[in-house]
Amino acid sequence: MNEDIQPLIDAMTSRARIAARAIAAASDADKAAALRSAAAALRASQTAILDANARDMEEGAKRGLSSAMLDRLRLDETRLGGVADAVEQVAALADPVGEIIDRTERPNGLIMERIRVPIGVIAIVYESRPNVTADAAALCLRSGNAVILRGGSEAANSNRAIHQALVEGIVAAGLPTDAVQLVPTQDRAAVGALLRAQGKIDMVIPRGGRSLVERVQEEARVPVLAHLDGICHIYVHADANPAMAEDIAVNAKLRRTGICGAAETLLIDQNFPEPARLIGKLIDAGCEVRADDMLMELDPRTVSAEEADWGTEYLEPIISAKMVSGVDDAIDHIARYGSQHTESIITADQAAADRFLAGVDSAIVMHNASTQFADGGEFGLGAEIGIATGRLHARGPVALEGLTTYKWLVHGTGQIRP
Amino acid sequence: MNEDIQPLIDAMTSRARIAARAIAAASDADKAAALRSAAAALRASQTAILDANARDMEEGAKRGLSSAMLDRLRLDETRLGGVADAVEQVAALADPVGEIIDRTERPNGLIMERIRVPIGVIAIVYESRPNVTADAAALCLRSGNAVILRGGSEAANSNRAIHQALVEGIVAAGLPTDAVQLVPTQDRAAVGALLRAQGKIDMVIPRGGRSLVERVQEEARVPVLAHLDGICHIYVHADANPAMAEDIAVNAKLRRTGICGAAETLLIDQNFPEPARLIGKLIDAGCEVRADDMLMELDPRTVSAEEADWGTEYLEPIISAKMVSGVDDAIDHIARYGSQHTESIITADQAAADRFLAGVDSAIVMHNASTQFADGGEFGLGAEIGIATGRLHARGPVALEGLTTYKWLVHGTGQIRP
Repeated sequence: MNEDIQPLIDAMTSRARIAARAIAAASDADKAAALRSAAAALRASQTAILDANARDMEEGAKRGLSSAMLDRLRLDETRLGGVADAVEQVAALADPVGEIIDRTERPNGLIMERIRVPIGVIAIVYESRPNVTADAAALCLRSGNAVILRGGSEAANSNRAIHQALVEGIVAAGLPTDAVQLVPTQDRAAVGALLRAQGKIDMVIPRGGRSLVERVQEEARVPVLAHLDGICHIYVHADANPAMAEDIAVNAKLRRTGICGAAETLLIDQNFPEPARLIGKLIDAGCEVRADDMLMELDPRTVSAEEADWGTEYLEPIISAKMVSGVDDAIDHIARYGSQHTESIITADQAAADRFLAGVDSAIVMHNASTQFADGGEFGLGAEIGIATGRLHARGPVALEGLTTYKWLVHGTGQIRP
Repeated sequence: MNEDIQPLIDAMTSRARIAARAIAAASDADKAAALRSAAAALRASQTAILDANARDMEEGAKRGLSSAMLDRLRLDETRLGGVADAVEQVAALADPVGEIIDRTERPNGLIMERIRVPIGVIAIVYESRPNVTADAAALCLRSGNAVILRGGSEAANSNRAIHQALVEGIVAAGLPTDAVQLVPTQDRAAVGALLRAQGKIDMVIPRGGRSLVERVQEEARVPVLAHLDGICHIYVHADANPAMAEDIAVNAKLRRTGICGAAETLLIDQNFPEPARLIGKLIDAGCEVRADDMLMELDPRTVSAEEADWGTEYLEPIISAKMVSGVDDAIDHIARYGSQHTESIITADQAAADRFLAGVDSAIVMHNASTQFADGGEFGLGAEIGIATGRLHARGPVALEGLTTYKWLVHGTGQIRP
């Protein structure tokens, strides 16, 4: 490792801890004002940010980035306006900090109260999209946390310009500069140092592709909030309305194929009356169907699924399809191959739905709905820092509440323990 | 590593995962019945358990265990009765599983519901006290989790006998044998294999001394729920009632010096009117007071504190004592030297109390109460699996709710995402 990296990260985490204490104590109004001020600074810095982005685009083109990557990197007036709008929307969200979760009085008169507090210092490690710089900073600040951002090298100039504008806005509103820090080097060792900063960073959130998330989960010695895969299932039960099943399957797979909530496997009950039409609809809509032997007989356009298909997140217009013998077989298949992200049962039979909802051990389990609803905005959370498939702290779409923890306050009148 | 250990732990975690699915689906009544049946089996197996314990005591004496350790190890009719009683008390606690945490209906008609579910597979790594075998198993089972227990070698025979009785009771009530497993080897490599079982064990809880907890925190690749130190502070504010301050300081330090909620540092405000009497009371009660220069002048029986004292958990009748300039100075001292466990301010001034409660970043912050109340039972949680000083998932005393997580259920009527 470059020997300057560790002292750099140490200094950043120390400053973050000090800033975290100040932001944790900031009022709802102060945090909202700081975010509105940051949004205004983003708009006022439009020229500088778009210039910086143009340099990133130029370097990206030279380095041979794909057109999809360049599109993710690109900012223009409209997109930057959207970034500022999103910061304002986060400013308008209710402050989770200070909420009394519960309160009980004990026989000895002690009052035990749990109140919501910020987590402390959060690190975000992300890839090309520069909007994450503003988005993640806004959510962390709104929930009273200090944040250390580490963006991808492709977007280094854009991220620096956006970060500078954010900090101008935050400082103008009286909150500390170190509330939002951006790692100033693209040296990959900086990520390693963040991941090993136990006690200095309270949580790390990776946002990006599978290889980034995998590296973070493997190396991290601090808690990670993330999902590695989104191998989402649609189970079409015997009593599914065929038209509803077709609409949901097509939407869940094809509305956007590149998002983690896109369906990757279709489980069709052996007693579902219209399996051929369902598969035909997907193929007609442009989806490749990799089917098991039973389902392959229904449509000559299907291709044969291999064992690896059941555990593959395609993120493309491809779906694996399997016939199952009933709800329990579907639950077993999902337990074996799923990634505990989002699964949906399509059925008119409430008892079957209840069995599926209870038996599937995923962050999100749906009945008669498209898995593409797996999104904090759609859940009414107002925003989303990511989707978590771990089992502790927060599961599914994570927004402001997931960026908080609690502490116990004990109010006494001189009680001592007998 | 003994090459048999990894396959052993792999097999145990696989069986635990299968059992976890069954227990997660078990009803409140089934889990309560299984625990009552386990308590009955403990009572019925009294002879076998006490015989096994006698063998452990004999070997322990041969191996030269201290009398304190032998006392922790020892079971008799009364103590075993207490162990069975505790299991029955856990059976009587409310089932946290299935609780609806919140529920919202979206404009598109989707209903988003968060319900409490078990975590899955929990490992408990503990030392000499054999009652932990029954205690931890009961709490995990009550909250719908499968548990893998790894007790200390001193108590191997006792743990095996208690485990056998528990399983007999659980199986008699129709729940799976693998709901509660005991690692059958004392090879230390088994602990390492548990700690590295990512995705197979969802949480590990160490119960024991500092060196055990430290090893678990350092080696674990699975989430850990624990506290390393309990460096608890009492801050006697300028407006503290002197008699209340004395009673609380003596109780917080001396009621039991060996528990994590025992006070280790006394911070006395420079404007508190009776510092000499307060220090004198502690010394009169048999406590060594390691004081800073200011406080040393007040009583010739004090000894001089060194820098290391501020960060030491004595667990003995010793307290460090320091004069502070006010609430903020106390908060700063605690932020610098504390372990985020439990701190208490003694004051009649509500504004000072509010400032302290808000500004101290510990799992538990008290006003006018003894830190020795830091205990799940005292908090009204009915029991306690441990106290956590980490920031995620659960903080402070952890009981049944801390052994659960949640999942999202989405109820639709055919919604697709536009």
